[in-house]
Amino acid sequence: MTAEQFADLAADALFGALEDPALNSMNFLNEVASHYPDAIALAAGRPTEEFFDLADVHRYLRGFCRYLETELGRTPEQVRRTVLQYGRTKGIIHELVAENLRLDEGIEVDPESVVVTAGCQEAMFLVLRALRADERDVVLAVAPTYVGLTGAARLVDLPVRPVRTGDRGVDLDDLAAVVRRERAAGRRPRACYVMPDFANPSGLSMDLATRRRLLDLAAAEDLLLLEDNPYGLFHGDSDRIPTLKALDEHRRVVYLGSFAKSGLPGARVGYVVADQRVAAGDGSVGLFADQLSKVKSMVTVNTSPIAQAVVGGKLLAHGGRLTDANTRERDLYARNLRRVVDGLAARFPHDPEVTWTVPAGGFFVVVTVPFPVDDRLLESSARDYGVLWTPMGHFYDGVADVRSLRLSVSVVPGDLIDLGLDRLTALINDRRDRSPVPVGRGRLADGAPDDR
Amino acid sequence: MTAEQFADLAADALFGALEDPALNSMNFLNEVASHYPDAIALAAGRPTEEFFDLADVHRYLRGFCRYLETELGRTPEQVRRTVLQYGRTKGIIHELVAENLRLDEGIEVDPESVVVTAGCQEAMFLVLRALRADERDVVLAVAPTYVGLTGAARLVDLPVRPVRTGDRGVDLDDLAAVVRRERAAGRRPRACYVMPDFANPSGLSMDLATRRRLLDLAAAEDLLLLEDNPYGLFHGDSDRIPTLKALDEHRRVVYLGSFAKSGLPGARVGYVVADQRVAAGDGSVGLFADQLSKVKSMVTVNTSPIAQAVVGGKLLAHGGRLTDANTRERDLYARNLRRVVDGLAARFPHDPEVTWTVPAGGFFVVVTVPFPVDDRLLESSARDYGVLWTPMGHFYDGVADVRSLRLSVSVVPGDLIDLGLDRLTALINDRRDRSPVPVGRGRLADGAPDDR
Repeated sequence: MTAEQFADLAADALFGALEDPALNSMNFLNEVASHYPDAIALAAGRPTEEFFDLADVHRYLRGFCRYLETELGRTPEQVRRTVLQYGRTKGIIHELVAENLRLDEGIEVDPESVVVTAGCQEAMFLVLRALRADERDVVLAVAPTYVGLTGAARLVDLPVRPVRTGDRGVDLDDLAAVVRRERAAGRRPRACYVMPDFANPSGLSMDLATRRRLLDLAAAEDLLLLEDNPYGLFHGDSDRIPTLKALDEHRRVVYLGSFAKSGLPGARVGYVVADQRVAAGDGSVGLFADQLSKVKSMVTVNTSPIAQAVVGGKLLAHGGRLTDANTRERDLYARNLRRVVDGLAARFPHDPEVTWTVPAGGFFVVVTVPFPVDDRLLESSARDYGVLWTPMGHFYDGVADVRSLRLSVSVVPGDLIDLGLDRLTALINDRRDRSPVPVGRGRLADGAPDDR
Repeated sequence: MTAEQFADLAADALFGALEDPALNSMNFLNEVASHYPDAIALAAGRPTEEFFDLADVHRYLRGFCRYLETELGRTPEQVRRTVLQYGRTKGIIHELVAENLRLDEGIEVDPESVVVTAGCQEAMFLVLRALRADERDVVLAVAPTYVGLTGAARLVDLPVRPVRTGDRGVDLDDLAAVVRRERAAGRRPRACYVMPDFANPSGLSMDLATRRRLLDLAAAEDLLLLEDNPYGLFHGDSDRIPTLKALDEHRRVVYLGSFAKSGLPGARVGYVVADQRVAAGDGSVGLFADQLSKVKSMVTVNTSPIAQAVVGGKLLAHGGRLTDANTRERDLYARNLRRVVDGLAARFPHDPEVTWTVPAGGFFVVVTVPFPVDDRLLESSARDYGVLWTPMGHFYDGVADVRSLRLSVSVVPGDLIDLGLDRLTALINDRRDRSPVPVGRGRLADGAPDDR
């Protein structure tokens, strides 16, 4: 009797992308982590739990309800309904989100262009679903690319074309070249996904001049930019650079917002700002946000109003800003980042074979090594060396030979970083002794490796 | 200067289904309701707000945290992490959901086969996305069909084929005929969507014999059944009939669960039970739930643990059952249902042109009238007569001439029902005086109208 005979469904009769690495990435990484709970976690991109307090949830909920009553003049019955009943598809904290964007980011948007989502992941899905009209459409993404973008694109059969990251967060020449190449092949590049601040996974940021040139290029090429900004508040000691959306004069930017790192991950609340004007065949003009809202009504109906109330309450508790609310977190991440970068410098001095990025903020450092880094190596690292990290292959869609790994500094206890780096160093040195190979493939500065 | 020149995007370059009635249905109905707030609401399918209490949210949250500590032995740090951090993709209340299914429904399932979702809508989306492998696939649905199923199917380009409802909730001969017809045309019917208990919108239920025959037919035709059960607890004075899943001996049933009506709509927590075994090409066998989990990781990552904790706390507060927790709601809906049905009988005695269903429970009554019922008529009803209901066309995918309307009894105050029915009666009588047309098209018993 074969497995087939025992089974109710055959995998090959299901959605093909279920077997795609992009859709299996998160599960695989979580599984390795859960099998080796004692390994030092330089892998997870979760925010620190150090300042979590369950009492905050109650406090935020009460604060939001008080705001509805006193600021918005709602009756107690209306407050109950707002928080406990089905709600507005685009959300109930859109005005607070718009106010937060004004205060924290200098972004001025009509609250009606905000769609509050079940985490930023849903925001990505909604945008890609709405943009994908037919098989000619493609989305561009600076590579290495957050796997959630690639996975969401898979769900709507939208190919992702990599753009080199260069040393400024996006290689504009390559972007222009990819757009031209795709158009010449009869395809329609609809948008380019970018994370200008402390990108996941590269850690790189775009300087102001690059941002402006990127906006100009997007306007010239009639391309939307999907700006994802989960890490902007964690800028260490560096000055903040305006987001693309803050610089966006021609509505080229769809802004993807997350409260998972700056608010509370357990609320699973994110949002998208989509102020683009959409012309219908009948001459009417509406907001892109309202198109996304239609998709949302068939994915999650509306984002949990209770969860929104918690995030709204946190915003209210801090005068609408999340900058001050994250001072402790920002300091902790910056301290950990310094420890990792200094620790790598101490362990690999003048070593041309082992290099790494030195981000000014965010959660991530990318280490380039002289041998292929794959999932098997991660398992060996977890089992034999007791240290977890993320193979960069997960962020290079479909590329086999990637020679770098991502370290995350957000959840590792600061006093374990040195031990974690010792273990990683042992792995790197053991491995390169065993299999010396030429340097240089899959280096971060190449963006997508050459054989894309 | 035309609208095109002002616009940033053209609707015809976006996902085509954005203009589809299925994706515009919810927004349209909400808009009409919000424009006429004083009209008597016999439209909305929301649960009653009469017993909402914000204090419950705090109580449930605390109860769930206490359960994690005392029942599951988690440390305070682990409790904080469980509720406030990113969480398990398949959810954190899967064991409570499985226990609830055992107690309330007599359904025995492995908690690992449960995926907790951001409302039942996400559950539908996940299942349809996973089942849709290529352009040959279709899903069947008893018509009239909940518009959320049709909308989710649009998002994954999965055609929905209507099956007649008959007078037993599903016409099995028609189901078999549709399966054969689709297969003969080279298509693959993957599943049939059904709501065996007090269906939305028909109000009809399947008797036990029909359920058994439906399961046999599904096994014989190698078809999954997608059983959606949001209304089963609201059975009025009638005895409960076992769900398909409780009768399911061969894992033909994917069970779609909702806590929106029985738990708390503002939590937006639902789930799917997918215990089907999936055989991979390499001979390994896994749960369909784990395939759905991969899709979920790219749609919402995980369902808000805070929202799950609220629902988990409600389950715990009632010993794992939601039957007793909904006694007041069940009585209220049954009382309203009786008022509507009795009120219709009093207003249209021996009237062959105006007929209606007499459901034993649930939220909905369908009234058949001798003239076409469309969105314009609804707007006129709201504006000129002050009463809101739902045109049944919203539940017949793509059918133009539907002559019935859905009344919902769940949010209307009981003492307004008679006034609402008076207004509806005025509308019906005015309209049939104005435009007499032959009886009989779009009647509920026909399931999908003849011209499908």
